[in-house]
Amino acid sequence: MITEEQIKNALQKVFVPTAEQSVTDLNLVRKITITAEGKVTITMASTALSQEVQDFVAAGIRAALADFKDTAVSIEYVEAKPEELNDVKQIIAVMSGKGGVGKSLVSALLAIALKRQGKRVGILDADITGSSIPRMFGINARPLGSETGLLPVVSESGIEVMSMNLLLPQEDSAVIWRAPLMSKAISQFWTDVVWGKLDYLLIDLPPGTADAPITVMQSLPITGVIIVSTPQGLVEMIVKKAVNMAQQMKKPILGIVENMSYFYVPELKKKYELFGESKGAALAKVALAPLLGQLPIDPELARLCDNGDIEHYTNESVANLGKALLAALETKTKSG
Amino acid sequence: MITEEQIKNALQKVFVPTAEQSVTDLNLVRKITITAEGKVTITMASTALSQEVQDFVAAGIRAALADFKDTAVSIEYVEAKPEELNDVKQIIAVMSGKGGVGKSLVSALLAIALKRQGKRVGILDADITGSSIPRMFGINARPLGSETGLLPVVSESGIEVMSMNLLLPQEDSAVIWRAPLMSKAISQFWTDVVWGKLDYLLIDLPPGTADAPITVMQSLPITGVIIVSTPQGLVEMIVKKAVNMAQQMKKPILGIVENMSYFYVPELKKKYELFGESKGAALAKVALAPLLGQLPIDPELARLCDNGDIEHYTNESVANLGKALLAALETKTKSG
Repeated sequence: MITEEQIKNALQKVFVPTAEQSVTDLNLVRKITITAEGKVTITMASTALSQEVQDFVAAGIRAALADFKDTAVSIEYVEAKPEELNDVKQIIAVMSGKGGVGKSLVSALLAIALKRQGKRVGILDADITGSSIPRMFGINARPLGSETGLLPVVSESGIEVMSMNLLLPQEDSAVIWRAPLMSKAISQFWTDVVWGKLDYLLIDLPPGTADAPITVMQSLPITGVIIVSTPQGLVEMIVKKAVNMAQQMKKPILGIVENMSYFYVPELKKKYELFGESKGAALAKVALAPLLGQLPIDPELARLCDNGDIEHYTNESVANLGKALLAALETKTKSG
Repeated sequence: MITEEQIKNALQKVFVPTAEQSVTDLNLVRKITITAEGKVTITMASTALSQEVQDFVAAGIRAALADFKDTAVSIEYVEAKPEELNDVKQIIAVMSGKGGVGKSLVSALLAIALKRQGKRVGILDADITGSSIPRMFGINARPLGSETGLLPVVSESGIEVMSMNLLLPQEDSAVIWRAPLMSKAISQFWTDVVWGKLDYLLIDLPPGTADAPITVMQSLPITGVIIVSTPQGLVEMIVKKAVNMAQQMKKPILGIVENMSYFYVPELKKKYELFGESKGAALAKVALAPLLGQLPIDPELARLCDNGDIEHYTNESVANLGKALLAALETKTKSG
């Protein structure tokens, strides 16, 4: 007789189209029952699945179980809110206060580093008016969905992404929205998206200390915050506002990442500190958090981002950033 | 007998303390009457002046007219709204959509260039949560004011500035405000500040296409918009959102400024395009506006900004930027 284990293994190979994630990873499998006579009933969440997709998935499940010839399989769909399906272990907000320091870049590189370590990772792009994530990953598929929810779009290496830019008619369409609408969109990217089972959800915040970070810090169960800065004193001043905000809102700062630390000219074997001397260590002191890494200005990285190939960036700084984050999370867990 | 001309000349030398502007430039002189007997009455707006400052200014006026020994001078104060006093010829919003591309830098350099041409210039820093202007100019005086209004603070070279950072307890204090409050602050920087007589008021907008630019475009009589970008394709995509917004809101785009175009290594006589090939000309085409200039990455400029010495930057790119803007404004005036 078929076992629950065998069914679970089979379901791991059933993918939801376009989302390119298995029904298991999306946490759509709600219940598996096997009667004494060996009759199998699989209860699935219909969340975010149109009738067409539900049928497609059901057919997929039957095909995956076709080897068990004598097993009668019935598949039933039940309604569930996306939030009930979301099983996200850690939510990390990437913020800065200042624009253009590389929040999206750091969010993307951290996601890539964690993914390369075999973790399940998603990115919630909370920069509604200036979304950068889809372009960096070369993603332009429209998210699949129904009235009950939306499915994230998945990158080449398997990172789940939800971003306003995936929902716009064109990637350069302007979102001329006042903040309440914007905050609602951000909240919905959490409440209405089937992220499923994730080890890490990274939230790429827009600049400032206004609505978007307030909404995220107040309404999402975030584990902590990563602060991105650059060496310029002017930037540091504004980034300190973000540090102050996180502290006032009692969100742990997991670490600091300094971007654009220097530009290395190989012909001269010389580092140029284009925006001044590093202030990362000083900022880390103020934030009472570790300096997770310093990223150089790298024209190759800019090129990969523009071409949607950020996942092909293999510089060791990426792996180091991921390791530093995992170490910081571990320290935080130990210290409470 | 004393003439109105003589009185006006004398008033030009009467300064409002801390604001470091004459009562004439702040447009506080409302009326001058000279009776047949030579009795002079000067009617002044009391706007933004505390009783103490009113007395100080009145004493200043008497001192300035002391040479005219036989003239009886009476000074009276009347109430007036700041908006009634503001006589600003052109209001130019500097926007981008994207953060960190150098909106504040371009606003500052344009103001400096126009000031060096002998124009009267102000900067309204509309980036409430991430104000950069005061730091660049080394300004940290608290604005003088009363219940009826606020006076701008003035830079070393005489540029009027109003910024949230001048009103905060510390420059790195966080402004954790939702957007309606933020929009109100921006509006008040226009309605409640005595800018007086200005040739140009530059508005330094925060990133995005949400509340701040919506408020400025809807409630301030702006002449046009300058768009700031960098060569990165990803940035260009987001900057196009700002171009689209300006076009949808029917605000003329006066020109494009490309920042961080390249880094010049003098030892090698080589230009490094750190963020990719210039896209300024292409963007100018989309925006149907001239490319006003391309600014290199200059560590010296970053240093001056951090030290509050941006007005000491003498690179010819500044003068060129100013000339290009004036030419663009002239073309716009001619074409309607």
